[in-house]
Amino acid sequence: MDYQATLERIHNALKPVIGQGKVASYIPELANVPPEQFGMAVVELDGTVHSVGDAQVRFSIQSVSKLFALTLAFQREGDSLWARVGREPSGNPFNSLVQLERESGIPRNPFINAGALVITDILASRFTAAETATSSFLSRVSARPDVTYNARVAQSERQTSSRNAAMAHFMKSFGNLHNRVGDVLDAYCRTCAIEMSCVDLARAVGFLVNRGVNPWNNETVLDASSTKRLSALMLTCGTYDAAGDFAFRVGLPAKSGVGGGIVAILPGECGICVWSPALEETGNSYAGSLALEMFTTFTGKSIF
Amino acid sequence: MDYQATLERIHNALKPVIGQGKVASYIPELANVPPEQFGMAVVELDGTVHSVGDAQVRFSIQSVSKLFALTLAFQREGDSLWARVGREPSGNPFNSLVQLERESGIPRNPFINAGALVITDILASRFTAAETATSSFLSRVSARPDVTYNARVAQSERQTSSRNAAMAHFMKSFGNLHNRVGDVLDAYCRTCAIEMSCVDLARAVGFLVNRGVNPWNNETVLDASSTKRLSALMLTCGTYDAAGDFAFRVGLPAKSGVGGGIVAILPGECGICVWSPALEETGNSYAGSLALEMFTTFTGKSIF
Amino acid sequence: MDYQATLERIHNALKPVIGQGKVASYIPELANVPPEQFGMAVVELDGTVHSVGDAQVRFSIQSVSKLFALTLAFQREGDSLWARVGREPSGNPFNSLVQLERESGIPRNPFINAGALVITDILASRFTAAETATSSFLSRVSARPDVTYNARVAQSERQTSSRNAAMAHFMKSFGNLHNRVGDVLDAYCRTCAIEMSCVDLARAVGFLVNRGVNPWNNETVLDASSTKRLSALMLTCGTYDAAGDFAFRVGLPAKSGVGGGIVAILPGECGICVWSPALEETGNSYAGSLALEMFTTFTGKSIF
Amino acid sequence: MDYQATLERIHNALKPVIGQGKVASYIPELANVPPEQFGMAVVELDGTVHSVGDAQVRFSIQSVSKLFALTLAFQREGDSLWARVGREPSGNPFNSLVQLERESGIPRNPFINAGALVITDILASRFTAAETATSSFLSRVSARPDVTYNARVAQSERQTSSRNAAMAHFMKSFGNLHNRVGDVLDAYCRTCAIEMSCVDLARAVGFLVNRGVNPWNNETVLDASSTKRLSALMLTCGTYDAAGDFAFRVGLPAKSGVGGGIVAILPGECGICVWSPALEETGNSYAGSLALEMFTTFTGKSIF
Repeated sequence: MDYQATLERIHNALKPVIGQGKVASYIPELANVPPEQFGMAVVELDGTVHSVGDAQVRFSIQSVSKLFALTLAFQREGDSLWARVGREPSGNPFNSLVQLERESGIPRNPFINAGALVITDILASRFTAAETATSSFLSRVSARPDVTYNARVAQSERQTSSRNAAMAHFMKSFGNLHNRVGDVLDAYCRTCAIEMSCVDLARAVGFLVNRGVNPWNNETVLDASSTKRLSALMLTCGTYDAAGDFAFRVGLPAKSGVGGGIVAILPGECGICVWSPALEETGNSYAGSLALEMFTTFTGKSIF
Repeated sequence: MDYQATLERIHNALKPVIGQGKVASYIPELANVPPEQFGMAVVELDGTVHSVGDAQVRFSIQSVSKLFALTLAFQREGDSLWARVGREPSGNPFNSLVQLERESGIPRNPFINAGALVITDILASRFTAAETATSSFLSRVSARPDVTYNARVAQSERQTSSRNAAMAHFMKSFGNLHNRVGDVLDAYCRTCAIEMSCVDLARAVGFLVNRGVNPWNNETVLDASSTKRLSALMLTCGTYDAAGDFAFRVGLPAKSGVGGGIVAILPGECGICVWSPALEETGNSYAGSLALEMFTTFTGKSIF
Repeated sequence: MDYQATLERIHNALKPVIGQGKVASYIPELANVPPEQFGMAVVELDGTVHSVGDAQVRFSIQSVSKLFALTLAFQREGDSLWARVGREPSGNPFNSLVQLERESGIPRNPFINAGALVITDILASRFTAAETATSSFLSRVSARPDVTYNARVAQSERQTSSRNAAMAHFMKSFGNLHNRVGDVLDAYCRTCAIEMSCVDLARAVGFLVNRGVNPWNNETVLDASSTKRLSALMLTCGTYDAAGDFAFRVGLPAKSGVGGGIVAILPGECGICVWSPALEETGNSYAGSLALEMFTTFTGKSIF
Repeated sequence: MDYQATLERIHNALKPVIGQGKVASYIPELANVPPEQFGMAVVELDGTVHSVGDAQVRFSIQSVSKLFALTLAFQREGDSLWARVGREPSGNPFNSLVQLERESGIPRNPFINAGALVITDILASRFTAAETATSSFLSRVSARPDVTYNARVAQSERQTSSRNAAMAHFMKSFGNLHNRVGDVLDAYCRTCAIEMSCVDLARAVGFLVNRGVNPWNNETVLDASSTKRLSALMLTCGTYDAAGDFAFRVGLPAKSGVGGGIVAILPGECGICVWSPALEETGNSYAGSLALEMFTTFTGKSIF
């Protein structure tokens, strides 16, 4: 498969629409990111890298971080994790409190904000600093020593995190948050503010492509069965309230973030990451979603 | 792959739990089905049939019929279909009116009751009788001339269909139902009352396994891309409010019914059907769900 | 108290705004009512009538009928009535299904549509025709022999009653509707289509003003305690989702209808009815609500 | 009217049921209050006091304080207050987040917790300490110099206020809370922890009985029209989600608290306060609600 040619074909086809949509504005520091950027990378299991556009530019990975925080928590907690967070699509906007109320403080899945707060709380109970645990984990799986967060973005997000604070306090009222709310929010915002490039992230999902084994150092991150299960969760819950539509159009397990990044995996073959900051109403990158749809159309490959 | 041995291993492993759970009781005629039944069949693309237990017993396919009614409507309407029904998991019990109210009478997906009523309405506008259109379609894809519905079950269901009537009238108030409510409910209940065996149904999904081409007569039912999309929809929405959990545990596109049947597909390889009438709280067959989980564990095969 | 002068003062003050708002459009026959009409009447307990404007014009009383249907059902059933319908404000638009779902098919109160359908069902079980029972009752309490409904309006409403049909079927699914849904809807629509004038309706609430005794024939309709309770229900639930605001601004027990009529009572003194077809967003008459607010301001009388 | 005899008759009638129900347990300090206590007081406009039982025992007034905090805020802000809080019954349990989400952070009324947090925020913007402003106001209207809060109860409540914290942060996300969340919660919990007796509270509502004028010092607290409006709000929203039922059974404007206190007013005649710590499921005092129902039955007086 000539992935480089495919990426270039996608890049050319998308040029007219790059920048369409809206950059996330609720985090002031992110509102200033120029929308006319686009990068995409494919990393094969042998380490070969294909890329186009701004694939080496670091961006705010935001909710893409939830995939790695969950992996780390799942690795340590195993299936007992699922007593505190569900595995079902949310069927509601990603910051809704309604479902949390109806379901006794158990978030529907670990990829909505409420669920990621619980995951952060779990990591905060196991590690000195939850955000460092996740960034160190990202360093190992992406084979980059220097994964870190942008302190200004973290602080900007922390200052506008009233809704996340509401959810955290609400879950605490149900006993589903064990650490101090302020500490969990600090760690959560810092984790969201981690910055990486498309190439880094396409490499970072290598262990998911490779049945749980980190291809860059041969360490087992998860067993094969758990890896498949995580991929299933990405498919059903990874792209906010548009997961059904995304599965329908793209057909790959994926996780998106409001920074405009989306990572996806083609099991056994390659990790993929696309980034373009302007978003659809669903919170997913507009050009990024189209790019992944083209990827499966042009290559004829999907999990279905 | 020795599917016959796998089926026998599953059957043996499950014997202690067959009958656990509760037979659907809201349709009086179904409440009398003895729970201690279990059948499972695998049909490969070359036509080879593997089966265990009660795999030749006809049962009420109920919501499994929604998969075939949708296929037929999608074949005729194409993507214009999605203006009247969504593609997102419901995130709510399968007969909920709440979401319908919030979303202006557009059901979340074609596999919840409300969505299937819209599909039935679409077929009722195109065919003399929607239920006959679906049963004829099932005859063609399962290579059985005699697919038909059980009139007693249909009538029993029709007499207890107040909730479906409520949803139908409600959608009509939004303009999303074009035929007479009574007619649509008649056709809907008859379609649910179609009776088939595991072997029949494992054969009937052959076109989904075979990229849209009916393997038994080489007719194209859907193009390859539409077929994949339908499979994605099965994965995210096919098993009521447990789709996320089902994808996590089983990892195959599937559609279940309250009669206790579940069909699943392993793309490019085989169609699978399992039946056991006793249900989990989610409305899916208890032994059937376990059987499919074992199938992917024992064979090491899933779409992930 | 010079009620005639008060009515004239109100009429003059309101002239600039009569016709502002929107005539109910969901019932085609009602959409054609000219909005620039206004009538108001006060009937004292000694039978003295004061009126201004179109106080003798008959209009479609719509939900004002719910007050009298409830009285009749309460008279016959007594407190056992409250097992089938609540006494709490709805806190939701008047045709919502959400609350009905959450509360097992028990409507919040008898003045929302769902509750009035239950009341109609109760009357349908006790009388040959529920609509005739209510119109006969209205004849007795208003001392007018000829209270009847407009058949064209009833039919128009029946043909656009999908939401009410949805609610009726939904309540039937919970066992809270005993007669045939179609029959209940017929009777309900006919009851809503009863036509009366302001003078008629201000006289019809005489028994509520007079501690339960019909002042025009000295018959006891309800005992004094039940009468007070009904008045309390009017205050907390009588004006759709604006009951709190209405109590705050007006301070009188009242019942409104989308035909633009509102009846109110000043216990021990008089019955009041105002009519003007153009509505606020809440479904209450715009000029009518202002007129009643002025009435309590100008007279200095309210129940508080 | 011989109020003393009426109180004694009520007290005797209720003796068998005093202590039935459940003392509020979510605030640890309150959980230890012995349930078998009952006091009731009536204060006439000329200052005459009637009382029975534990009418001089100070108890935690809890949400009864919301009535006085609102009065103070309304006195200072006037009708601009209603841009930040509604006037409609909630139709939901008193700590629900659902409605807040649907209605953009505007609480339905000032007597649910969310609404009282907004009122506290308003007072915090106008006074050095919101809790002191309210307790000073209570001193003036009850003619007791020493109204103050119980610090242990306030702290106990503050430590278990995760749900209130969730609501406060949530409203802040909509811009409807201006001060620091922690400061507002501190003031809110202290205000709830104010301790007064039945006699004190029956005297404190004197200005509401007396058309807005404090009968003990002749100061005007509110104008007559605003006073009536506040009474209307008590009737429709003062007793949590049971306001409709309470109006139906009792027929007096009232405000209750989970400490077991309820104040009520008979306009132009007297203030009433009853206290008994064991609660109904609705959060209102069980014996207290019955006592007020008996009061209107025995005296034949209500606002209806």
